Amino acid sequence: MDRQIDLEDLNRKVNHNYFNAWLGLKVVEAGHGEVVMHLPWRQEIESNRDGNFIHGGILGTLVDTAAAFAIRTVIENAVRTIDMRADYHAPAMGDLTVRARTLKVGRTIATADCRIHNAGGELAASGRAAFIVLDPARRPRQ
Amino acid sequence: MDRQIDLEDLNRKVNHNYFNAWLGLKVVEAGHGEVVMHLPWRQEIESNRDGNFIHGGILGTLVDTAAAFAIRTVIENAVRTIDMRADYHAPAMGDLTVRARTLKVGRTIATADCRIHNAGGELAASGRAAFIVLDPARRPRQ
Amino acid sequence: MDRQIDLEDLNRKVNHNYFNAWLGLKVVEAGHGEVVMHLPWRQEIESNRDGNFIHGGILGTLVDTAAAFAIRTVIENAVRTIDMRADYHAPAMGDLTVRARTLKVGRTIATADCRIHNAGGELAASGRAAFIVLDPARRPRQ
Amino acid sequence: MDRQIDLEDLNRKVNHNYFNAWLGLKVVEAGHGEVVMHLPWRQEIESNRDGNFIHGGILGTLVDTAAAFAIRTVIENAVRTIDMRADYHAPAMGDLTVRARTLKVGRTIATADCRIHNAGGELAASGRAAFIVLDPARRPRQ
Repeated sequence: MDRQIDLEDLNRKVNHNYFNAWLGLKVVEAGHGEVVMHLPWRQEIESNRDGNFIHGGILGTLVDTAAAFAIRTVIENAVRTIDMRADYHAPAMGDLTVRARTLKVGRTIATADCRIHNAGGELAASGRAAFIVLDPARRPRQ
Repeated sequence: MDRQIDLEDLNRKVNHNYFNAWLGLKVVEAGHGEVVMHLPWRQEIESNRDGNFIHGGILGTLVDTAAAFAIRTVIENAVRTIDMRADYHAPAMGDLTVRARTLKVGRTIATADCRIHNAGGELAASGRAAFIVLDPARRPRQ
Repeated sequence: MDRQIDLEDLNRKVNHNYFNAWLGLKVVEAGHGEVVMHLPWRQEIESNRDGNFIHGGILGTLVDTAAAFAIRTVIENAVRTIDMRADYHAPAMGDLTVRARTLKVGRTIATADCRIHNAGGELAASGRAAFIVLDPARRPRQ
Repeated sequence: MDRQIDLEDLNRKVNHNYFNAWLGLKVVEAGHGEVVMHLPWRQEIESNRDGNFIHGGILGTLVDTAAAFAIRTVIENAVRTIDMRADYHAPAMGDLTVRARTLKVGRTIATADCRIHNAGGELAASGRAAFIVLDPARRPRQ
């Protein structure tokens, strides 16, 4: 991946967000149009007390957040989520990794895809979010 | 709404879930194919520290959870989310209310729609989730 | 419904579109934020030759088209589809009716929901589409 | 791609469907979990008469159809679409190519992703469909 992108700077932005900070979300790799983020397990994000499955809403959170940061590696404009979709493929358990890639970063709309894997490598969920690019003056990253 | 449905029982199920319990989610009304749930504000669910907006992932959590409970008012079978979509219409702020209604509860697939309102009545988000009905022996609620 | 909205004018716009015209799509009722459209059966829109089911892509076409026309009852701006979702609830057969209602018509994004019924009244499919409002000068209908 | 998969047999199935046959849809490549299909241009599939854009509903049709055939390269069971989503990235014009890949083919639910390109290579649309696997006796292809 592109070493030009400053992980520390991205992580400052991740943490400039109460819920992301509470979750302990972290960008661990980033390139042009792509980020990999880690979510450490904590019991409060689990769903049903009888299983050890992570709540579907947390997986949706990962889709929304990782997609936005993938887009931030391409443009510096602020973006606002229009909609988000998540598909659940297998129980999500333990520490999770989400990889997001931009599909298209247009002048007004940007879209990115995400895949969420369990520590063992299984595809737990995937999804997509669409964003409006907020500032008319599009600013590609240097 | 139907007074037959036992709110206390539904809320026991809501809370038999670590993340719902942490959020303080609560069913406040329920009828056949319909629930209304409340989410009290807490700072950890906010997004960007410069605004006071609730994180899109929390709104996705409300869609997934309220849709599942709307279906539980029609059948007693366990359900598992296949996929979920959330649309963001206006900034979500403060205490939220989510109203979910079933669209179709079939033998194998069940779908419900949700609308999330701010305390002031503005539509903040809406969404839909599709579920697989887990048990072949469908059990309509009495 | 609102009789102010000129059905003939809406239907001219429906037919200013080759595929809609080939389908024979027609607006039969319209009000503020709402349209009802009819799709007459024809064999070429059917799916598998062993059933008499209408192709899922045709139902998606109804979602996209009816949602756009519901929005046109609120604003005169041109809109372009950002994304669309269709859920399939029961086999669609024969002449179909689609009812679309706006969820939110914002300055830049507009969203509408649709339900598609068989002639017998059964809910065959439902869906949602999100649109970008193309012209910065929003023009509410008089 | 896998030459084991019989394109002629797949195309017989594509054409055992009135709408696909009317469209002239054709599988041109297939491998395990993947198909590439071609859609030849015809004027009736165009949208607005002032542009030469292909109707969004046709692009949704490609998502639904190509996703189903990608799954058919993995299992022989019949499938029924639960839901379909399409994102529109750029105007679709002329002959189109759609490439579909399975994300997960489970025992009861199967999901595949699609990308639709214009003849010039531009990404015009993309999408996803989720299917229920109809027969309890899963039959992997030999």
